[in-house]
Amino acid sequence: MTSHRNKDNTRERLLVAAASVFESQGYGQARLTDICRAVGVTKGALYCHFPSKEALALALLEKQAGVWHRQAASVRLRQPSEPYRLQDLIDVTYAVLADLRQDPVARAAHRVLFQDRVFDLVGGMQVVSCVTLVRDMLHEAQHHGELRRDVDLREAAEGIVGSVIGVRVLSRAMCDYEDVTERLETMWRMWVTLLAVPTCRAALRVGALHAAMAPHGLSGDAPRD
Amino acid sequence: MTSHRNKDNTRERLLVAAASVFESQGYGQARLTDICRAVGVTKGALYCHFPSKEALALALLEKQAGVWHRQAASVRLRQPSEPYRLQDLIDVTYAVLADLRQDPVARAAHRVLFQDRVFDLVGGMQVVSCVTLVRDMLHEAQHHGELRRDVDLREAAEGIVGSVIGVRVLSRAMCDYEDVTERLETMWRMWVTLLAVPTCRAALRVGALHAAMAPHGLSGDAPRD
Repeated sequence: MTSHRNKDNTRERLLVAAASVFESQGYGQARLTDICRAVGVTKGALYCHFPSKEALALALLEKQAGVWHRQAASVRLRQPSEPYRLQDLIDVTYAVLADLRQDPVARAAHRVLFQDRVFDLVGGMQVVSCVTLVRDMLHEAQHHGELRRDVDLREAAEGIVGSVIGVRVLSRAMCDYEDVTERLETMWRMWVTLLAVPTCRAALRVGALHAAMAPHGLSGDAPRD
Repeated sequence: MTSHRNKDNTRERLLVAAASVFESQGYGQARLTDICRAVGVTKGALYCHFPSKEALALALLEKQAGVWHRQAASVRLRQPSEPYRLQDLIDVTYAVLADLRQDPVARAAHRVLFQDRVFDLVGGMQVVSCVTLVRDMLHEAQHHGELRRDVDLREAAEGIVGSVIGVRVLSRAMCDYEDVTERLETMWRMWVTLLAVPTCRAALRVGALHAAMAPHGLSGDAPRD
């Protein structure tokens, strides 16, 4: 039992160290030796968990894989009295993107997502899985009468995920994610205009300030855990 | 003179071979030996032009760097009687993205753009340079009275470039760019709604069919070269 826990612990520490080394050296340049040194293990111990650098990258992505789904569940729990499903969706994107500024694993996962073979192996699938989640949330919003009649759910879901990717890339290019929430606000102002019926549109909170004040970018009037 | 031309020729052939090897093996896995073999030169000859694989990646990106600007100039030449600057901008994006389906160098450049260190070195700057071009074109459109009064040029330019990046990533993830023009059509229907005044909106051609019929995705009624 203890040995199992130790093993899990080493695996976790290797992942966190890999995230930090990928961040400081870049994925292509990152050396496994430096990851081992940060954790204080031999290369043999590393290989016991991860046969290659690519395996580390894939494990980091896997760790982040469910983040949209986890945040979606968490938003629902935190704001059970929130009347608008679109608000939940907006808050999920703030929560996911806020992580880029504070969580080294999230940053590393975004960094490796677009690495050529990694993208072909799992990155592409993760993007598709995000689209499915967003479409499901939009479907609920439609069911609640929040969406304009001319909204095509698939097109809107793909457009929103595409816009979020654009926000991430531009924010990284321009200022290392410093303005990621402001960019998200601009993006949502646009999407809300396109998607929401007037009553819903007037009630939605799309602002970065609204998100910044809440822990993990999540908002709501329900008690927090 | 001949020797100079030969040298340029070898450099060009190395780039084209690199594009093809990056495509088939992925950037991370690509071996310089295979690039040399495709061109029929020694590794020494390769190093004479490119000191590393990264140098090849950067040269590919540099080759593509001016593509938005070149297409913008070309669109103007091809359709001098086109009354709408927004139509020029739409046609530029079709021309740039159509290349992803047919030009190995364009595909390779997109493939390496997001490679970690490459993005930090030049990819990010190229994205910013696109934003500048799009803002300039929007500024002209505004000058011609095509834009709604509430349009913020910087936000719109960044949003459009972000959307184009999203289109590229989603189209690659889902079907290796097969549907890239259809996705662009969806994207532009949305942006035109947000940007254009009604008279202009009614006149703009945003369809993939419109683009597919024209060479290189460019359209217009001017004589072609």
